Amino acid sequence: MGQPQLQFSWPLRVYYEDTDAGGVVFYANYLKFMERARTEWLRACGIEQDSLLAQQIAFMVRSSHLEYLSPARFNEQLVVNSTIDQLRGASIIFAQEIIRPNGQVACSGRVKVACIDLERNVPVALPDVVRGALTGER
Amino acid sequence: MGQPQLQFSWPLRVYYEDTDAGGVVFYANYLKFMERARTEWLRACGIEQDSLLAQQIAFMVRSSHLEYLSPARFNEQLVVNSTIDQLRGASIIFAQEIIRPNGQVACSGRVKVACIDLERNVPVALPDVVRGALTGER
Amino acid sequence: MGQPQLQFSWPLRVYYEDTDAGGVVFYANYLKFMERARTEWLRACGIEQDSLLAQQIAFMVRSSHLEYLSPARFNEQLVVNSTIDQLRGASIIFAQEIIRPNGQVACSGRVKVACIDLERNVPVALPDVVRGALTGER
Amino acid sequence: MGQPQLQFSWPLRVYYEDTDAGGVVFYANYLKFMERARTEWLRACGIEQDSLLAQQIAFMVRSSHLEYLSPARFNEQLVVNSTIDQLRGASIIFAQEIIRPNGQVACSGRVKVACIDLERNVPVALPDVVRGALTGER
Repeated sequence: MGQPQLQFSWPLRVYYEDTDAGGVVFYANYLKFMERARTEWLRACGIEQDSLLAQQIAFMVRSSHLEYLSPARFNEQLVVNSTIDQLRGASIIFAQEIIRPNGQVACSGRVKVACIDLERNVPVALPDVVRGALTGER
Repeated sequence: MGQPQLQFSWPLRVYYEDTDAGGVVFYANYLKFMERARTEWLRACGIEQDSLLAQQIAFMVRSSHLEYLSPARFNEQLVVNSTIDQLRGASIIFAQEIIRPNGQVACSGRVKVACIDLERNVPVALPDVVRGALTGER
Repeated sequence: MGQPQLQFSWPLRVYYEDTDAGGVVFYANYLKFMERARTEWLRACGIEQDSLLAQQIAFMVRSSHLEYLSPARFNEQLVVNSTIDQLRGASIIFAQEIIRPNGQVACSGRVKVACIDLERNVPVALPDVVRGALTGER
Repeated sequence: MGQPQLQFSWPLRVYYEDTDAGGVVFYANYLKFMERARTEWLRACGIEQDSLLAQQIAFMVRSSHLEYLSPARFNEQLVVNSTIDQLRGASIIFAQEIIRPNGQVACSGRVKVACIDLERNVPVALPDVVRGALTGER
């Protein structure tokens, strides 16, 4: 079982698939990078989303507020730094930053993720195991 | 209701999302363009895939054999030309070509699509309505 | 030559490529849909981005603030409605909404796009032709 | 500097971004997974593609022949196994397989990659460092 963590860093590599004809990462792909980092954060805490799905619990992204600051380039190794901005009853607002090898911030922003009961299609309280993992309160 | 058609042409535009840092369409995206064309061919024949899904019937791509010939560029208007290469009991092999504005072939190939019963997860015979639409035999 | 337009609607279809295992449009793809609509708006005004690129002028997305409201599904025909929220010297803030066939808003938000001189890699004033097209002031 | 390797295994995780409404990996994405594996193979041999690009040398995918055998699912950890099928003067044919956690082959096929001189836009001989790295003949 993983350990609770109050912040999380996840490295990833920029491949051709991530870039566009401007020679840089296509901006919509930063949302993918941020989701990979959130998923791996939960995994590092011992939480697998397919186990939650088997209990009819899913995370759904509700909003994203991103600033695109310094475009990352092909072949760069990036790091996604994530923290919790707000932990609410049925949702989490993540603050995430994607850092380039030269230290510049490629993209910075906030992503709100809600916890959904798939059977009834309504928001539900975050499972205790998730809350505990992301706050250390367990 | 649409008419049966023995070939089908579908236009589409290259946006930034489709390109990579090489300044051209990222090759994997030609598979997306070909699928859009197959979907619109069926739609032009009056067949909606979500209606088939409601009957637990889905198309699943089984193989793709593509040659990448002349890379398409940002903002080009392409045309996907599709014909039937082989019509089998439970599958279709499409022959598809993607043409650039200058007449060059960006990508050419064959895509095999099988008809699946989602409930039992096994291949099933192509629905008569699909067979008829794509061959004119109805 | 196209006509200036103070708002613009662009239809598009949801294909498998746009969806995820949740059975709905993968949220990052709404950014793609909004960019397609902005590109086609400019095109409808007679402005081609590859012509601007030939003059070393490009648009670069600086920020996106999106709310994901009602997830769109496979095969739905969506409409992207776009207006200008703010027109500044060297940037435009678009307000965009993506509407589902049932009238619900799938995604709503603001996207800030800056005009860049690629040679010097600095912001530059919006070309008059772009300003005129989007405001009718020409 | 990395060591020459006659085969290469690269692990990767299936995220939501990789799946479609069928609940499985969208088939075009296997091409992305295979490219990541080829890139990391070269990197493991000490070859960085951005260094090659600085010498105006790029790899361009010429053809892909893929069979989609057993669809991979959300959250699965996959492994891409790659070998050289043919090493020609100016191109490489890779044989690649993507393996699911249960041992089933998700996707199998051959991808032909040509070496291009970007300045003259013509095929060129594979750099010795690449040939040596992939064959051990150095």
